[in-house]
Amino acid sequence: MRIVVDVMGGDRGPEVVVEGARLALKDYSGISELYLVGNEADIAAARKKTGLQDKRVQIVHASQVLTMEDKPVEGLRKKKDCSLLRAVELLKDGRGQALISTGNTGGMVAASTIRLRTLEGVERPAIAAVIPSGHGHFILLDAGATPECKPIYLAQFAIMGNLYCQQILGTKNPRVGILSNGSEEIKGTELTREAHRLCKGLDLNYIGYVEGHDLFDDKVEVVVMDGFLGNIVLKTCESMGRAVGRFLKRELNATPIRRLGKVLAGNALLALKTKLDPDIYGGAPLLGLNGTVIKAHGSANARAIKNAIRVATETIQHHLNESIVREISKANANEMVGAETK
Amino acid sequence: MRIVVDVMGGDRGPEVVVEGARLALKDYSGISELYLVGNEADIAAARKKTGLQDKRVQIVHASQVLTMEDKPVEGLRKKKDCSLLRAVELLKDGRGQALISTGNTGGMVAASTIRLRTLEGVERPAIAAVIPSGHGHFILLDAGATPECKPIYLAQFAIMGNLYCQQILGTKNPRVGILSNGSEEIKGTELTREAHRLCKGLDLNYIGYVEGHDLFDDKVEVVVMDGFLGNIVLKTCESMGRAVGRFLKRELNATPIRRLGKVLAGNALLALKTKLDPDIYGGAPLLGLNGTVIKAHGSANARAIKNAIRVATETIQHHLNESIVREISKANANEMVGAETK
Repeated sequence: MRIVVDVMGGDRGPEVVVEGARLALKDYSGISELYLVGNEADIAAARKKTGLQDKRVQIVHASQVLTMEDKPVEGLRKKKDCSLLRAVELLKDGRGQALISTGNTGGMVAASTIRLRTLEGVERPAIAAVIPSGHGHFILLDAGATPECKPIYLAQFAIMGNLYCQQILGTKNPRVGILSNGSEEIKGTELTREAHRLCKGLDLNYIGYVEGHDLFDDKVEVVVMDGFLGNIVLKTCESMGRAVGRFLKRELNATPIRRLGKVLAGNALLALKTKLDPDIYGGAPLLGLNGTVIKAHGSANARAIKNAIRVATETIQHHLNESIVREISKANANEMVGAETK
Repeated sequence: MRIVVDVMGGDRGPEVVVEGARLALKDYSGISELYLVGNEADIAAARKKTGLQDKRVQIVHASQVLTMEDKPVEGLRKKKDCSLLRAVELLKDGRGQALISTGNTGGMVAASTIRLRTLEGVERPAIAAVIPSGHGHFILLDAGATPECKPIYLAQFAIMGNLYCQQILGTKNPRVGILSNGSEEIKGTELTREAHRLCKGLDLNYIGYVEGHDLFDDKVEVVVMDGFLGNIVLKTCESMGRAVGRFLKRELNATPIRRLGKVLAGNALLALKTKLDPDIYGGAPLLGLNGTVIKAHGSANARAIKNAIRVATETIQHHLNESIVREISKANANEMVGAETK
C-alpha cells in the first residue's frame, strides 16, 4: 500500500507527524511506500530527531504550507506549492492510494474534492467523525465537508457511513439514524423529512430519526446530518469534553485530600480522559472521493497519526471505495432514491 | 405576585412539585397567591405528605393530564380539561402572572403560544436554556419552541436572550453570538447570514458567529440559533453529560482503591455532578409571550421546582416582558431589522 502523509500544517509541527509515520512503518508491513510531503529541510530534521530511516520512505518537497489561518479556497489559489496540494496530486496521479493530513480541514476538503472528484454516483463527500459514547462509539457524518445538503446527499451519507462502520469499525448491522429534533416523522425540517423517506427505501438497518439525547446512549451507530449541523454538534461535544476535563483537573487539585483521591482514582480518571480524547480513533475519513483521504486532528500526537495511517491501510484493504460505488449504484437504481437524482 | 404551578405531567409525580412549591412559599414572601393546578385528590395527598398549609395556596382542579407520550397538538385537542390548559387559562384571564410546568414541552409551547399569543412585535417565542460552562454559564436559545425560523426571529431571539441574561442572570453587557459552522461571514446558512446582518444593526454586544468549540470556553453568554438546532445541541449536551457521569461512576466503583479515591475526591466529583446537572438553574423560560412561562425539567426535583418559581418571581419583578416589548419595538423601528418584518 502506498501512503501519502502531509507533514505540514498541524498544530504540533512536522516532528510529531514524522514520528507517527515511523511508528506506523514499524507496525504495518503492508505499507510498500510512504511519501512524506512538506518542507525538505523540516522533514530531514524531523527524521534525524525521530530516527526514521525506513527504505520505504520517499520525500516530496513542497515550499509552502496552508495554515489553519488560511481561508481554504483563497489559500489554495495563492499557495500552489503547498504540501496539501502536492499530497493530493500524488493521489491523483496514482502514486499514492491514501492521504493523511493534520492541516486545515476546509482546505483538505476543497483540495481533494476539486482534484480527486467524487466517486461514481456519489453527489458530495462527507467527513465521518468517530465519537466515543457510553460503552462504544458512534459515527457522525457529515462533520463538515458539505454544509448545505439536499436529501439525496443525506441518503448517500447513510450508505457510506454504514459501510465504513461495518468494514473499518467492525460493527455488524449498525443502526443508522437521521439526527432530528424528535422521533416522530412530522418532526425535523424539509431536508430531514425527505431524507427520512429516502433512507426508508435503502438496504440498511435504518431506524429513523434519532435525537440529541440518543447519541451517547448507545442507541445508534451511524448518525446522519448535514455538514452545518455536524460541524456544530462535533465541536460542541469536543468543547464540552475539554471543559469537563479542565473542570475536574481544577477541582481535583483544590485540596491535598482531593489530590490524594485523584491519585487513588487515577486509572478511572485516565479512562475518562481516554474517552474524551479522540486520538485513539485515528482521524476522520473524508468519504465519497476517488482516493482515501483521512483528516487527523490538528493537535494529533504521534499515536493519533499512526492510528490515522492504520485506518488508511484498512480502508484500502477492505476496498471501501469499491463497496461505496456498488451500494450507491444499487440505491440510485432503486426508484425511491433514484427519483431524486434525475 | 401570583404564581401558577402545573402539578401534573412531570416524571416524578405531584408530590415533588408540591414540595417545591412549599419551599418557594417559605422563602419568597413576594408571592401573594400560588395556584396548584391538577387532580384535586393527588394535590390533597401531596399537601398532606409535604405538610403544605400556606394560606396563599389555591387549588384548581383539572381532571386530565397531558403526558410526555401525548403528541402536543393532538393531545391538547383531546384533553380539554388537562392541568396544563387550565394553568395557561389562569394566566390568560389574569388571575396568574407566571406559570411553571414540568410537563410535555411541546404541549407547553403549543398551549401557551395559542392561548397567550406573542408579545407585541414579537414574531415567535423561544425557549432559553441556561447551560453551565467552564466558569459560568451560557444561554442557548431557541432550545426548541420554534424549529423552523426566519432571520428576523433569530434577531429577536438575540434581543430577548440579551435582556434575560442581563436582568435575570445579572450578566453585564453579555456577548451575543449566532451559532454557526465557522467564524467568517461567508460561513453558515442563508438563515444565519441574514440573521447576522440583522444582528449587526442591533443595540447589543453582538460578537458575530460563534462555533461549537466556543460554547464551553466562556467566549459567549447568549447563543442564538433556530429551535431545530437548539433542541439538538441542548439534548446532545445533556446526553453527553449523563454519559460522563455514568462512565465515571462505573470506573470509580471498579476497584476498592478507586472507591477510596472517589470518597477522598468526593467534593470535586460532586462539583462536577452539579455542573452537569441543570437543576440549579431552575428551568427554562419561554420568552416572547404575554405572560411568564417557565419550563422545569421533566425530572426536576423539589429544589429545581423551587428555583423555577424563583426565576418566575424575578422575571415578574424585573418587568422582563415590558423590556422585551420596548427593545423589540425599537429594533423594528430601525430600518435594518424593520425591513424584514414588512
